[in-house]
Amino acid sequence: MSDVPLSDFGRKFSAASGIYELMEDLGQAVSTGGDICMMGGGNPAHIPEVEAVWRRRLREICDTPGAMETMLGDYDTPRGRPEFLKTIAAFFQRTLGWEIDAENIAITTGSQAANFLLFNLLAGPSAGGAKKILFPLVPEYIGYAPQGIAPGLFTAWKPRIEMLGAHQFKYRIEFGDIGDDVAAICLSRPTNPTANVITDDELQKLSDLAAARGLYLIVDNAYGEPFPGAIFRPARTVFGRHVIHTFSLSKLGLPGTRTGIVVANRDIIRRLSIMNASLVLASCSVGECMTQPLFASGEVTALVHEVVRPFYQKRSEQAQAWIAEAFDDALDWRVHACEGAFFLWLWFPGLPISDRELYERLKKRGVLVVPGSYFFPGFDEPWQHKHECLRVTYCAPPDKVRRGIAILADEVKKAYAV
Amino acid sequence: MSDVPLSDFGRKFSAASGIYELMEDLGQAVSTGGDICMMGGGNPAHIPEVEAVWRRRLREICDTPGAMETMLGDYDTPRGRPEFLKTIAAFFQRTLGWEIDAENIAITTGSQAANFLLFNLLAGPSAGGAKKILFPLVPEYIGYAPQGIAPGLFTAWKPRIEMLGAHQFKYRIEFGDIGDDVAAICLSRPTNPTANVITDDELQKLSDLAAARGLYLIVDNAYGEPFPGAIFRPARTVFGRHVIHTFSLSKLGLPGTRTGIVVANRDIIRRLSIMNASLVLASCSVGECMTQPLFASGEVTALVHEVVRPFYQKRSEQAQAWIAEAFDDALDWRVHACEGAFFLWLWFPGLPISDRELYERLKKRGVLVVPGSYFFPGFDEPWQHKHECLRVTYCAPPDKVRRGIAILADEVKKAYAV
Repeated sequence: MSDVPLSDFGRKFSAASGIYELMEDLGQAVSTGGDICMMGGGNPAHIPEVEAVWRRRLREICDTPGAMETMLGDYDTPRGRPEFLKTIAAFFQRTLGWEIDAENIAITTGSQAANFLLFNLLAGPSAGGAKKILFPLVPEYIGYAPQGIAPGLFTAWKPRIEMLGAHQFKYRIEFGDIGDDVAAICLSRPTNPTANVITDDELQKLSDLAAARGLYLIVDNAYGEPFPGAIFRPARTVFGRHVIHTFSLSKLGLPGTRTGIVVANRDIIRRLSIMNASLVLASCSVGECMTQPLFASGEVTALVHEVVRPFYQKRSEQAQAWIAEAFDDALDWRVHACEGAFFLWLWFPGLPISDRELYERLKKRGVLVVPGSYFFPGFDEPWQHKHECLRVTYCAPPDKVRRGIAILADEVKKAYAV
Repeated sequence: MSDVPLSDFGRKFSAASGIYELMEDLGQAVSTGGDICMMGGGNPAHIPEVEAVWRRRLREICDTPGAMETMLGDYDTPRGRPEFLKTIAAFFQRTLGWEIDAENIAITTGSQAANFLLFNLLAGPSAGGAKKILFPLVPEYIGYAPQGIAPGLFTAWKPRIEMLGAHQFKYRIEFGDIGDDVAAICLSRPTNPTANVITDDELQKLSDLAAARGLYLIVDNAYGEPFPGAIFRPARTVFGRHVIHTFSLSKLGLPGTRTGIVVANRDIIRRLSIMNASLVLASCSVGECMTQPLFASGEVTALVHEVVRPFYQKRSEQAQAWIAEAFDDALDWRVHACEGAFFLWLWFPGLPISDRELYERLKKRGVLVVPGSYFFPGFDEPWQHKHECLRVTYCAPPDKVRRGIAILADEVKKAYAV
């Protein structure tokens, strides 16, 4: 049966992708445990203070008559639980000042599913020709790359690299032309994988461009404000009928519940919920039920400000200090300005081996990272820089991160020595 | 922005569908509560003995060091939790005798997502022309209808109607030609919406035809064996490299966790898991963690045999008795032989109003059902029979079901009296 013909979509969509390899590595490493330094996937850290909140909530749900029964035993509507939609809309209104209500919200199976639905709703073959999603800045999230139903769904602008001191740098948006084939502009903020937070001015300019051109601007806040709040400097966001924001409970510590949250105008939300019904019937209810009172009371904001953000900021600083220690000044290494998310993005200018080769050598030594070249969706131009970078996370226990960094430095030095 | 151009896929996939209306009605009715007789959606009943098991498991998970932390805080692999995959493969091997292992299993976001992935993996535009999924028997599940990425993804055979006594009937497969454009054959067993269980001979013949033609046979066991076991007469299944089985934890009582389980050959499973990574990154972990020890110990089988199946069988018999009471013998009404699932499929030959009109009249009186004409995916031939049927569930509390049936009988009689 291995020669059973597949559809064109099936052939494309079931071909091995970077995100699949990453998730397989991650899942296998987590389940086998052992002595692996897991610095690859985006699994959030296990923060005891946060887990205490989940345990309390689960016990409350078990002890409240009817609460467990409805969480596990009742389907959501295709848009989510009416009660949660109201609560989270009010939360966004309070914290961000957005004039929205429950009809501006849809729950999806994680923000990965939200992106799949949004990209393909807007881009692909259409009455007006084949349309694309524009990434105004690459590197950009690895998980976007395989999500197009139609081939060639993405296009991207090449960034400008700004050097910062001896061992830092930052990508800047190099504003280019927006072709007639662009249906929407999309970016993650903070950027996965680089830990970049594009500036308020850059974001405003993108929003103005989108509005002027009648395009949607999709902002992926999986690591951003107001939760999990992994942004290490002040940042303003944008809002409007043409702006679609996606959020996730995963990085707050609930990846196992697969809860994505989309804020958009009512037309988009209605379409998303219809698509969601066809795709998955309804989303998983657990994340909504677990967090409902935290959003209602504002407890989530205290948790973000007092626990989650300080945790990741401290981890980031610690990991950067270990990197500075482990790499000689003789070697040309750079870390992207770490302004948020759970990652460090390392650049080794003139690296004599490819990022894939470095990944393989590290994997052999029990250190899992992600090769940088996976993070350039829609950017097919040859560029040596794509093969000189790695993404590492600092969510694993500190001793493992420290050891992983030491092994990484060792392998990079060996590569240059050849 | 309402005139923002959509992709062809977006336009098709975000158009209102029967399953969307059904899920919206269901979710709104469940959340508003009130005095509605909910006989529409497929929400499982709240069975206290089953819910006691979930409560016990949730408490065990809270009390076992690390168990809650991994359930909520760790991503699955794109195929599911390695431990659960092993356990459920062994469970199928023990209960059904299938020679499979963990690599024959993939977890999806409910079986709705499994169907979306399978249908579009196999059918649609391809190197060999446009391929279709064949439903050998309609009526068939409403949720399949909008799942094609490409238009016209489905085709169906017209059934033979066998009359049984004064007020029963049963659909039989009328075996037709399988065109060169067919990529796979699919059926639900028990059938949603009719409560039909196609015979062992019919299923074997479909399997033989598929094998001979090099096609896949997809069997959707959402209501079937070995869980939730809502099959009210003995039934054998089929197995082979060309057979794909889908299962669900929803009808066992866990719709809120969105857990679908696919059993297939390794090539299909590998492709599904890659597609799953692109679509949703990973599935929700909660259903796997909740049920893992139940599948390992076989407790799930005892629960099915002693609680779940008897519960639905008794409810079905009760509802049929109420229908016989409520409808006069003067009126020509028929119920499909109820051999499984949670539904009764009612046929009113010569009904003077459409099924949609009857649905609207019932909704006005607080009774939610599903119009029968939604359940003919791929069958576009005009046929009056399509507009003479309704699907009702008997999962709501008995007093509501009894009242709903009384109102239904009243409205049907009024319709005939006009």
